Amino acid sequence: MTRPARYEPSERTTPTRARHRAAYDRAVVHAILDEGWVCHLGYIRDGAPVVLPTIYARVGERLYLHGSTGSRPLRETAESGTGLPVCVTVTHVDGLVLARSAFHHSVNYRSVVVHGTARSVLGEEERAAALDALVEQAVAGRSRDTRPPNAKELAATSVISVDLREVSAKIRTGGPNDEPEDLDLPHWSGVVPVATTRGVPRPVADLSPSVAVPAYLATG
Amino acid sequence: MTRPARYEPSERTTPTRARHRAAYDRAVVHAILDEGWVCHLGYIRDGAPVVLPTIYARVGERLYLHGSTGSRPLRETAESGTGLPVCVTVTHVDGLVLARSAFHHSVNYRSVVVHGTARSVLGEEERAAALDALVEQAVAGRSRDTRPPNAKELAATSVISVDLREVSAKIRTGGPNDEPEDLDLPHWSGVVPVATTRGVPRPVADLSPSVAVPAYLATG
Repeated sequence: MTRPARYEPSERTTPTRARHRAAYDRAVVHAILDEGWVCHLGYIRDGAPVVLPTIYARVGERLYLHGSTGSRPLRETAESGTGLPVCVTVTHVDGLVLARSAFHHSVNYRSVVVHGTARSVLGEEERAAALDALVEQAVAGRSRDTRPPNAKELAATSVISVDLREVSAKIRTGGPNDEPEDLDLPHWSGVVPVATTRGVPRPVADLSPSVAVPAYLATG
Repeated sequence: MTRPARYEPSERTTPTRARHRAAYDRAVVHAILDEGWVCHLGYIRDGAPVVLPTIYARVGERLYLHGSTGSRPLRETAESGTGLPVCVTVTHVDGLVLARSAFHHSVNYRSVVVHGTARSVLGEEERAAALDALVEQAVAGRSRDTRPPNAKELAATSVISVDLREVSAKIRTGGPNDEPEDLDLPHWSGVVPVATTRGVPRPVADLSPSVAVPAYLATG
């Protein structure tokens, strides 16, 4: 099946302002999702919004999240017959935008907002693939270099999925949009880059000296 | 007034699992909030959860958020007589925790979850202080080195506040919790540090050569 190149905008994925920053291209959305591994999961509990950080993986047009069978959103997904309405948001901050005026200060960022319904993943094969994908999303190459989960560990883990259907990206790039009359003010103006970086891997104290730092953790 | 040193745990700020990772100390919560400037704001729109990234500032026991008067959560806060139920979450990712087993992989992080009600900030003085605080939270020292907002800009900006009352922090630190029987497996185990860093400030092309990089942006 050939998918359209863009997600269909819906009323809630169409911003009320700064529409030029919204994007619906599948490739753009996938690239933002694939660069991250921590999302913020929103759901409703007792009528109030809850936002929790958690890890995710993208596999095709589906996001997977996981957790203990005892964790609230996972339990509520499992217990609801129809799935749990969720919003999953992934954000990369790329820069602080400093304008001559306080008003035009801004942030360079790329974010994806996914509206959907979380469903429990129960099939053994899909669960195993999702758990591998969750490890791979954070550290590509790692899932083949660990002990796979045993039956007891699998029983303690819930996996949920959210389909990528109602999805939008939002992107701001570039410098400040100063007012023409502010250009001669004596305030510095420009962008301070912001990035998330990984440091040098620190082995546990009891690691066997025969185990080297794997290539997939190579830095620099 | 002397405040208690801890936020009072509520049913929804008490985790169902990993309770040892929860913290309610005001100093701990403030430190996590003060290190960040981007939060994820959750609210309910048409019965469904929405999670959006936005910037925030902490002033005492209050968070401030802002945006265009046209943005949805701000408009909905302004239009509701009783305020908008929100959840504001701030997360710092500190490390990837790689265990010998896939199951014990984890993330070192510090997060704060604030449950509360967003209210429109209408007083001129509090609004001005909040807008300064939003600039200061991201770049300390900057608010005094910009052109302050004029009447038109102030009229286009909504400010909302959320009191820090129902608040909890969650913190994971340290290495992997490998099972004793896994210690001899030939898989690397340890922590890959993760950090958010700022790069060298990049001035706009039309910046007057007489404007140097300010001391508050000094790197290294």
